[in-house]
Amino acid sequence: MDLFNDLADFSHEQINELLALAQRLYQHPEPRALEGKVLSLLFLSPSLRTLISFQSAMLRMGGGTFVVSPEMSIHGLESRAGIVMDGSAAEHIREAVPVIASYGDAIGIRAFARRRKLEDDLSDREFLELASLFDTPCINMESAINHPCQSLADWKTLDDLGVPSSGGRLVLSWTWHPQPMPLAVPAATLHMAAMRGMDVTVLRPEGYELPDVVMDKARQAAEASGGSLAETDDRAEAMRDSHVVYVNSWASARHYGNKHSEDKIKSGLRDWRVDDTWFENAAGDCRFMHPLPVRRGVTVTDEVLDGPRSVVIAEAQNRMLVQMAVLHRMLSASQR
Amino acid sequence: MDLFNDLADFSHEQINELLALAQRLYQHPEPRALEGKVLSLLFLSPSLRTLISFQSAMLRMGGGTFVVSPEMSIHGLESRAGIVMDGSAAEHIREAVPVIASYGDAIGIRAFARRRKLEDDLSDREFLELASLFDTPCINMESAINHPCQSLADWKTLDDLGVPSSGGRLVLSWTWHPQPMPLAVPAATLHMAAMRGMDVTVLRPEGYELPDVVMDKARQAAEASGGSLAETDDRAEAMRDSHVVYVNSWASARHYGNKHSEDKIKSGLRDWRVDDTWFENAAGDCRFMHPLPVRRGVTVTDEVLDGPRSVVIAEAQNRMLVQMAVLHRMLSASQR
Amino acid sequence: MDLFNDLADFSHEQINELLALAQRLYQHPEPRALEGKVLSLLFLSPSLRTLISFQSAMLRMGGGTFVVSPEMSIHGLESRAGIVMDGSAAEHIREAVPVIASYGDAIGIRAFARRRKLEDDLSDREFLELASLFDTPCINMESAINHPCQSLADWKTLDDLGVPSSGGRLVLSWTWHPQPMPLAVPAATLHMAAMRGMDVTVLRPEGYELPDVVMDKARQAAEASGGSLAETDDRAEAMRDSHVVYVNSWASARHYGNKHSEDKIKSGLRDWRVDDTWFENAAGDCRFMHPLPVRRGVTVTDEVLDGPRSVVIAEAQNRMLVQMAVLHRMLSASQR
Repeated sequence: MDLFNDLADFSHEQINELLALAQRLYQHPEPRALEGKVLSLLFLSPSLRTLISFQSAMLRMGGGTFVVSPEMSIHGLESRAGIVMDGSAAEHIREAVPVIASYGDAIGIRAFARRRKLEDDLSDREFLELASLFDTPCINMESAINHPCQSLADWKTLDDLGVPSSGGRLVLSWTWHPQPMPLAVPAATLHMAAMRGMDVTVLRPEGYELPDVVMDKARQAAEASGGSLAETDDRAEAMRDSHVVYVNSWASARHYGNKHSEDKIKSGLRDWRVDDTWFENAAGDCRFMHPLPVRRGVTVTDEVLDGPRSVVIAEAQNRMLVQMAVLHRMLSASQR
Repeated sequence: MDLFNDLADFSHEQINELLALAQRLYQHPEPRALEGKVLSLLFLSPSLRTLISFQSAMLRMGGGTFVVSPEMSIHGLESRAGIVMDGSAAEHIREAVPVIASYGDAIGIRAFARRRKLEDDLSDREFLELASLFDTPCINMESAINHPCQSLADWKTLDDLGVPSSGGRLVLSWTWHPQPMPLAVPAATLHMAAMRGMDVTVLRPEGYELPDVVMDKARQAAEASGGSLAETDDRAEAMRDSHVVYVNSWASARHYGNKHSEDKIKSGLRDWRVDDTWFENAAGDCRFMHPLPVRRGVTVTDEVLDGPRSVVIAEAQNRMLVQMAVLHRMLSASQR
Repeated sequence: MDLFNDLADFSHEQINELLALAQRLYQHPEPRALEGKVLSLLFLSPSLRTLISFQSAMLRMGGGTFVVSPEMSIHGLESRAGIVMDGSAAEHIREAVPVIASYGDAIGIRAFARRRKLEDDLSDREFLELASLFDTPCINMESAINHPCQSLADWKTLDDLGVPSSGGRLVLSWTWHPQPMPLAVPAATLHMAAMRGMDVTVLRPEGYELPDVVMDKARQAAEASGGSLAETDDRAEAMRDSHVVYVNSWASARHYGNKHSEDKIKSGLRDWRVDDTWFENAAGDCRFMHPLPVRRGVTVTDEVLDGPRSVVIAEAQNRMLVQMAVLHRMLSASQR
């Protein structure tokens, strides 16, 4: 495996093989599988769980990591073509990134959406541009429009919980958040659930429709897998008989990059906060999922988050396990 | 061993076993003892020696670490219960800490005193609250009221120097410092020396009495070990025939959390600075100990710090060695 | 090997042995050669490539690193003798550095020129003072006047490209830069090329003569190796038949530590920027070398940097490989 960027690049069977490998490495650790192997971690955006779960994943298999983070001298990393660099930026991605990549046997890259032009973010322009600068095997650690590690961990969490794939009902719900949030997790989650064969409903208020390209991709995955995709602003209808509500916030595509303009439509939506009443007509053991970090009392009440429906800790713990599988597939001598 | 929080949780014999293990690992390195093992290092307060001595300790036994530090996105880590998180904090300890802990096979936590309420700090409320959030084996890397790694290293240093336990005389002396300093090291040192069986004298000016709960705990340890505990503001009396002066500064409990009010009683105390005259009636080879960092010319003169009495470098070097023993006991397959 | 501070401390044969070891480790990895070994990395100045290439180098041989960086509590690290530390600095190098060194089996130190007194920087006063505080094997990761890891990597790059040593012509050219830049790389490069036996020409405008002590050292190396050393401000003359132009900027020794005064002589020199016209009478395959980071459009045009002459990525990649050789020689059981 030379690129782990999008679950859509893999077959359902390949995903199942990765999840089985994650399980095997959990039950039968291989502390020397990656000895002498190095993962380069390039963070152009901040991180907590992703950073430390990748560090731990490599260590558990005998390898190691180094980190390049926004706090380092890369603050002023220039990416424009044809620029005369006589300002504060002392380094260009065309020199920096190939070298950073070459010091590792694989590289993980995080680069959040720039939120200037919607089309650039939907086409993952920055991540793909960075990945084009080297030949080293590469992992998407969250880009403008994808987050395959989160989605693979969530897939494992759904499997672990016994949530049905065929016939399983997942609601992806928008919630209020003080900031405009990225599209990466909602887009990746939607596609993951559809690819898994679930009946997926996007629940969101007017103005928060997901972009067509995101919906179309998920719809194709649903068609191939026998799942389905719907969209509504009717909470009771969406939640009826649901097995999982996956909660996240995302920016309005209509007001993309314009917080002031979005704040106007968002001001009346603070009641888009998950509480116990959401589950009234859901399946009895309907689960609450969220990729973290989550704002208590804003996104969800303490009652739900601290109650038995919440599986957010398990989701985060599965991050490390599935990333071990991806790294093992990418780097171990026995796999290549 | 699932918790290393307080030397008081161990018997004298168990301490001696840890110190013997430290010595054995020094003389006979075991570079594969912890292969594939990961120590999570959670710093809610800054660190230099503690951070790098734990990193090196794991590496020397074939394991590794990852670090979560105040510079990371945990800056705004919320800890209050029932809070509505619509301010700058994006994450709550109830989600963050269990995940951070779960990515490691053990976790070290540093959380200095908050210095708001003396009772909270004396009962180590924050550290114990954090440690209650997970089941992973845990090491106290300095909390509001304890610093067991420093005390274990100091115990080793005393042993290495041949300072007698029974009949050995240790003075724990307050010194002037521009800032109000934590109670953790003085409290831990006092208990360690008393537990080791030494005759311990707390030397401090009026207003810098250690809290009763700290003194009482040390007195009980002294009684059990055959040592003794005294307190005075008379330097000559305290230092007479002493084998060790252990120097530190600490905040006045009377003015806890109120720097302005404490500054008034502290203003006349700048002569509480160790110099050669302190040792006039001490034992001939009386040692100078300090946990570092130490302010030259403020806490102690260059003459003493650069002279043969000073063992501050040895103390710091022993940090790594005793932590290797603690980690080996906690994590190696042969110990569990 | 206990000190890697200056290529001048090694014979030509010893350099060739290090480069052969680098090649061997590249072709035949030794992922357990340094198991349980720790490299302490002390950065008193910022770093990107040096930091991560040393981290990766240790990991590839089964060892590890820890990092002490300017962002940590060492910000206020005091170094003056006889100081009363009642300001913001809480720690002195005399306590901090021996401890940092002792936690590793070797230590790398970076400390850029302070640019206050030229003589202090030319004599590498700060680096040598730091290195005098411990007995641990030590690597210069760029000091005021040396950068042996960069020079060893550049030597390897020249060998890899087949640039002749005897008879090979290298131009070390000053270029315009918005900031006054250190002398370390130009001084180290000049000596390296001379030691390799090349015919070296320093090309620089009036006011940018390299200090006599730098020129004299390189001249002696050239005499011993059969090379030569010249200096000019005539670009066409310097570049004629050259095999390599090694580009860097450096501060004017005449205006050392006085940016305002230097800016006056520098203001007319923005045309000291490498473009295709520089190569008109060079050897046909004349190479462009630069240690990175490089400012596009300021130091060199995109045409040159993105064209076939540029070997800047290879230079950076060789950093990791030669550092593996230095570390293997310093730390592996088979070498000591």
